[in-house]
Amino acid sequence: MPIRPAVDDDQEAIWEILEPVIRAGETYALPRDLSRADALAYWLGADRTTFVAVEDGVVVGTYFLRANQLGGGSHVANCGYATGMAAQGRGVARRMCLHSLDYAREAGFRAMQFNFVVSTNHRAVGLWESLGFETVGRLPGAFLHPVHGAVDALVMFRRLADA
Amino acid sequence: MPIRPAVDDDQEAIWEILEPVIRAGETYALPRDLSRADALAYWLGADRTTFVAVEDGVVVGTYFLRANQLGGGSHVANCGYATGMAAQGRGVARRMCLHSLDYAREAGFRAMQFNFVVSTNHRAVGLWESLGFETVGRLPGAFLHPVHGAVDALVMFRRLADA
Repeated sequence: MPIRPAVDDDQEAIWEILEPVIRAGETYALPRDLSRADALAYWLGADRTTFVAVEDGVVVGTYFLRANQLGGGSHVANCGYATGMAAQGRGVARRMCLHSLDYAREAGFRAMQFNFVVSTNHRAVGLWESLGFETVGRLPGAFLHPVHGAVDALVMFRRLADA
Repeated sequence: MPIRPAVDDDQEAIWEILEPVIRAGETYALPRDLSRADALAYWLGADRTTFVAVEDGVVVGTYFLRANQLGGGSHVANCGYATGMAAQGRGVARRMCLHSLDYAREAGFRAMQFNFVVSTNHRAVGLWESLGFETVGRLPGAFLHPVHGAVDALVMFRRLADA
């Protein structure tokens, strides 16, 4: 499954992946009514590099990578990942995360941090743990889940071993 | 010491406060060479409310308040504070933080979070603790301090009691 940088022609495919994630409002701290234009402006922002995962010519997942902080914090990367509904459960997120870890290492980042993993997103938490991330922070009630109400969000962190 | 919303005429005073903080690079994850324009664009961004603390007609401190996340995370506030060199040690930061807690509560926020408190900034850590913040996360080596090298950054959090 090739993973390549996103191009302009990927915008519709990226939006088709992001829209149900954003509308559900269960995993990302984004407004549930976020417009297509604003969602794409966020996902493809100038401060980040965005990739798509392709399977049989179809974009099945997308992720971005950026510096999590500026200045003295710019050696830590941050990513966001989303997998298309039809491609769930096939390891797309895992492959994107592995790709992002390699990319981040090559780009000179020394660690990767996820700032806001919704604690009820057990699949994501388990996946990140299996890929070496540790929960280094727990934000009490920091996410208002549309079904579960106020739930904790996790800060997850992983050092990037030197090559 | 009145604390009031910043106006356009405060820009020079705000920059005089921010410049030494940014150039030192010891407490904020901002580029040490950040320009005046970019620093003011950050501190006075459209996504935040910015205040100044005034003493004898002189701006001695400034802070901003914003939602820390969007969507399901928008009930948690985030702030950044800076005190002028000449006004250090006189309780300006404490008064600004108390003001921000009141303002956040009135604006409907349910908690306040600092995402990246540099662990070597003992004065700030102690002040936030004295104001009810708890360290809920520790980011290992997430800040490259110009003097101390890689040091931890803290995530600090405080619920806002109902009125």
